[in-house]
Amino acid sequence: MRRRKFLQSSLLAPAVLSSAPALRAQKTTAPKSKINVAVLGSGLRGQSHVDLLLRRDDCTVTAIADIDPEMVQRTRALFDKQGKTQPRYYTDGPEDYKNLLAKEDLDAVMIATPWRWHTPMAVAAMEAGTYVGTEVCGAFSLDECWELVRTHEATGSHLFFLENVCYRRDVMAILNMVRQGMFGELLHLEGGYQHDLRAVKFNDGKQPYGGGVKFGPEAFHEARWRTAHSVHRNGDLYPTHGVGPVANYININRGNRFVGLSSMASKARGLHDYIVNHPAGGPDHPNAKVEFKLGDKVTTLLSTANGETVVLHHDTNLPRPYSLG
Amino acid sequence: MRRRKFLQSSLLAPAVLSSAPALRAQKTTAPKSKINVAVLGSGLRGQSHVDLLLRRDDCTVTAIADIDPEMVQRTRALFDKQGKTQPRYYTDGPEDYKNLLAKEDLDAVMIATPWRWHTPMAVAAMEAGTYVGTEVCGAFSLDECWELVRTHEATGSHLFFLENVCYRRDVMAILNMVRQGMFGELLHLEGGYQHDLRAVKFNDGKQPYGGGVKFGPEAFHEARWRTAHSVHRNGDLYPTHGVGPVANYININRGNRFVGLSSMASKARGLHDYIVNHPAGGPDHPNAKVEFKLGDKVTTLLSTANGETVVLHHDTNLPRPYSLG
Repeated sequence: MRRRKFLQSSLLAPAVLSSAPALRAQKTTAPKSKINVAVLGSGLRGQSHVDLLLRRDDCTVTAIADIDPEMVQRTRALFDKQGKTQPRYYTDGPEDYKNLLAKEDLDAVMIATPWRWHTPMAVAAMEAGTYVGTEVCGAFSLDECWELVRTHEATGSHLFFLENVCYRRDVMAILNMVRQGMFGELLHLEGGYQHDLRAVKFNDGKQPYGGGVKFGPEAFHEARWRTAHSVHRNGDLYPTHGVGPVANYININRGNRFVGLSSMASKARGLHDYIVNHPAGGPDHPNAKVEFKLGDKVTTLLSTANGETVVLHHDTNLPRPYSLG
Repeated sequence: MRRRKFLQSSLLAPAVLSSAPALRAQKTTAPKSKINVAVLGSGLRGQSHVDLLLRRDDCTVTAIADIDPEMVQRTRALFDKQGKTQPRYYTDGPEDYKNLLAKEDLDAVMIATPWRWHTPMAVAAMEAGTYVGTEVCGAFSLDECWELVRTHEATGSHLFFLENVCYRRDVMAILNMVRQGMFGELLHLEGGYQHDLRAVKFNDGKQPYGGGVKFGPEAFHEARWRTAHSVHRNGDLYPTHGVGPVANYININRGNRFVGLSSMASKARGLHDYIVNHPAGGPDHPNAKVEFKLGDKVTTLLSTANGETVVLHHDTNLPRPYSLG
């Protein structure tokens, strides 16, 4: 019942309404002037969401879940700074978010935890009857993608995918021009995520970015969990920055769909070289022995039902200028 | 025996020597000061080869094969203009080149005929004991590629692939920089052939380029035969402009090799639109009914034994600026 009210009151409604199942839930309840939002994961990304939510008049951040005392402390400070009532905190281990979902009276949940938590948390939140906004990547596997779809179909709760690149001013300007037909019929598109994340993947254990070659438990912030994906997985680990805008331009899931995919990865050199050449690293540093599976440049070729082709670029290991390709 | 002499006398020798089988043929015969060359196909491209050959002191163009009286006439004029002795002409149908190969005392043959003739002519010339330079594409299928390799292995004659982009000043400058290590270890490369050939694929039956929407028997020059490939085939029809330079940069067949390939084509719109919108065409022109199979943008992804990835672009149907990608 809550999601029905959320649907009619939220500023997100136009986006939510664009998918058919939402219409089922629409009834004649009066709009709600303010909605309750919980944030799962209040690391630096989650804090950015909290900061934005606190600036709005149409929502209240009523609950936060996080396992890191330092990040919780920083989040508390955001509420104090804005003179807002502190939310309830759920900090008793990685599964405490389930207690949050069970106890809180929520309209929506924002998820900004490490990648592996996105799908379990999104599924649990939809099952708890709230709308969900999740950070990318959202899912790791086809199984997880289908789990999200099936949960939506079973619960009627909506999942909104927070792919921020879709909302860049330049990307939206292009989308507007595409829809006005200024480019004629689209045939081929390219996009991607080429971002030198070496100082995100490694730090000194104190600062979030750079200053060392540590990763895993001894590192701070994203390097604590994100870098492991570069050790164990080879593929486009972050496809949605590239595919999001492209999908909008060619109406994917609005009459069009992807039908073919082929992906190839180059050899992996960038992260090892970074460790070896860093003042805090060197050839004898223990991390110089790590074999990174993630190819430095991953290229993916896609085809669509309407006959367009798409090339996606992924490179987060090399010293190149930022580019969406 | 002739090829042995050619090997030692030709300016092409450094390139020929770079492949091992050539060494087998090397003997101590005195260098020959001048070699005999035949040109198969003296259309506009073949005439350009003839014009260049006539400017050289180290070769004599002794024979020409072509089936088109107008092109033979233009070729004769080139010899007259340079004050050179006319070669023997073989103009008695498309198989007369076999008589040329049987009767002439040749060191080398240049092939500049329509695509479908490249492999049969190259094989026949190698079997006749001469070296061969062939225009692109050289082969249509894996079978033809292997036929060229096996003929070389059986005869010891060499095939030189005339991929001109490899010898552009800018491309060779990059090759030089690559070999000096200025880019470090290469991980990913892109290349291609993006060239608006619409006025090559269609003309008015009189001029070689543009002025109409004719192709096939009623057209002139390349549109007479080349455009049919866009009607019946979908794929990267002209890959070597892109892959040639890239292959040199990463030592393909010099210790490295391609091991994987995936290719996708967009829908086909460009050629049909050109016909429909051309002053000499229109929606009721008979050629407006032709269904072109060739996708406007063909993208190919390659992987190599040494771990590099390559993207090749092919587009000869759209109004875009020329680009090797």
